[in-house]
Amino acid sequence: MNKEALVQVAEEVRRATGLPVGWRDVERTLGALRATRDLWEAVRLSRVPLRFLVPIWEGLARRGLLRVEEGLDLLAEVPAPRPGEAACPACEGRGLVGERLPGRAAERFLAWAKERPEAIQDFDQGYVTPESTLARVALAWNWGDLEGKEVLVLGDDDLTGLAAALTGLPKRVVVLDADPRIVRFLERAAKAEGLPLEAHVHDLREPLPEAWVHAFHTFFTDPVEGPLGLQAFVGRGLLALEGEGCAGYVGLTHVEASLAKWADFQRFLLENGAVITELRDGFHVYENWGYIEQMRAWPWLPVKRRPEKPWYTSALIRLELLRRADLENARVEGDLQDEEATTY
Amino acid sequence: MNKEALVQVAEEVRRATGLPVGWRDVERTLGALRATRDLWEAVRLSRVPLRFLVPIWEGLARRGLLRVEEGLDLLAEVPAPRPGEAACPACEGRGLVGERLPGRAAERFLAWAKERPEAIQDFDQGYVTPESTLARVALAWNWGDLEGKEVLVLGDDDLTGLAAALTGLPKRVVVLDADPRIVRFLERAAKAEGLPLEAHVHDLREPLPEAWVHAFHTFFTDPVEGPLGLQAFVGRGLLALEGEGCAGYVGLTHVEASLAKWADFQRFLLENGAVITELRDGFHVYENWGYIEQMRAWPWLPVKRRPEKPWYTSALIRLELLRRADLENARVEGDLQDEEATTY
Repeated sequence: MNKEALVQVAEEVRRATGLPVGWRDVERTLGALRATRDLWEAVRLSRVPLRFLVPIWEGLARRGLLRVEEGLDLLAEVPAPRPGEAACPACEGRGLVGERLPGRAAERFLAWAKERPEAIQDFDQGYVTPESTLARVALAWNWGDLEGKEVLVLGDDDLTGLAAALTGLPKRVVVLDADPRIVRFLERAAKAEGLPLEAHVHDLREPLPEAWVHAFHTFFTDPVEGPLGLQAFVGRGLLALEGEGCAGYVGLTHVEASLAKWADFQRFLLENGAVITELRDGFHVYENWGYIEQMRAWPWLPVKRRPEKPWYTSALIRLELLRRADLENARVEGDLQDEEATTY
Repeated sequence: MNKEALVQVAEEVRRATGLPVGWRDVERTLGALRATRDLWEAVRLSRVPLRFLVPIWEGLARRGLLRVEEGLDLLAEVPAPRPGEAACPACEGRGLVGERLPGRAAERFLAWAKERPEAIQDFDQGYVTPESTLARVALAWNWGDLEGKEVLVLGDDDLTGLAAALTGLPKRVVVLDADPRIVRFLERAAKAEGLPLEAHVHDLREPLPEAWVHAFHTFFTDPVEGPLGLQAFVGRGLLALEGEGCAGYVGLTHVEASLAKWADFQRFLLENGAVITELRDGFHVYENWGYIEQMRAWPWLPVKRRPEKPWYTSALIRLELLRRADLENARVEGDLQDEEATTY
């Protein structure tokens, strides 16, 4: 069974019922059945409307892929990610922890993170704690956005691509970053660990090379937060996704973006066929960076003291495409950091 | 200092800087300063762009409300909610727990929840675990949506109004529910505990009485998930909010709503001036209800067994108004549950 078969099951159900079932609904249904044979647990894990699930199960049974008796038993290997199990045990799964990621990814990632290049101002860098990176990857694991997927990371000073690859789940991870130090570091880690991870020096203001357009299932990015920055980072991410059912993870702050800017960004997503499926404020905590006194905002501050504790946080947004996003792939002109600092 | 003063500070900053600062930005800035005198911690807790914060601090200092020396010291009592501290300690605050709510609210709520009326089909009832209700109230505490606020609950089989009132934070809590059993139960609890909580029998298909239009700061609702249901529950919620800076909490499932319906709902929110500031999937876990074999979906199910574990979950969405929402306050015609069952 391959992706084409998922598309066929979805089409068959659509024709028979008139319900707008997509291939990703079929994938989710199958992924849940890899984790449980209990009907109700399958409903919970699949995140698909009950009205879609029943005819999908019937379609799978007709094809001899599913036996329905006391429970729901898969009869074949299926190309669908098993939903992750990263829920925090202390808060009934309302939070996430990276510790349970497969492949001892958390332990191996923490070791690599100790050797990482420092944040520098040239690239507007500033990275999240390793625990934040792992939690972000854990959310993607929970949503079935890693296993068997082609993953793109647009700008990666958080080393998300490395953490994702260390889980052993993605088929391929591609990282684009403007900083050759990050690219070399990721290449070294990929080689040492034998990971399907490649990294390229690339300035996101440039058009996305054709080979990466509509070529991925999942992207991660932390955009520079001006309108042009959002276009360059998130627009490119949407363009890199194959189409319907593919997902993106985006960081967004309050420090650089007012709620009015958040609303503009949400409208941009919806206009381009993306629905928001998670928005978790305060998800990422940043490590304090060395160049804080050189920040544009420093001269304005009424108290000139370096922060002693982490203070810069950002929300994590997960979006999912309901249709292919056909954005323009033009060069973005202008200074993104300048624009971020002068919009709100 | 009162709300009028917050509006004045915001206007002053807007005039002087051209930045679109709102009264709620000033309220958040003050709330954070009630919790810390450290500049960076104040940035983190306020959730206001740094470019807004600096002139707001200056405006407060000029009015003699803030002393800026080594730290930022408030010099007056201010009408601003202190941000809550309900972050889960086990996952770096990515999850939430209700245990730390003030007023021993969690303990007292759990005791009341044991005596609650059972879910009945007449009103499409089904309620979340008490821990889910407490976590929902905890998120509102974190966002400063309870302290000193007038809170409306539209449909309350989850007893959210009771949990909110038990924190001792809201100025007033009003609950509307179609089920007289729920209303009587809440009235009994309110009387026994001496809470500023009132409950009214009200069918949300009817227009919202004028006294409740633009009268609240925060609402909670779990809508029936057809388009009309969303209009009746969430539309009334938006209409009940005073305006800019007020917030709503809405539950939304995958079981009854496809991602296409989620996208329509998100567009509806943005069109009515609301921005999404949280969307946490799987936040609420429902208790299993007694009438599951009478559910419309039961005959379709390929395996007819009652669930043994919780399986029905929903996401929690927090929205915030960027401007007053002026929706029509007309009667909603039709059977909301029927419509929910036939849309996707």
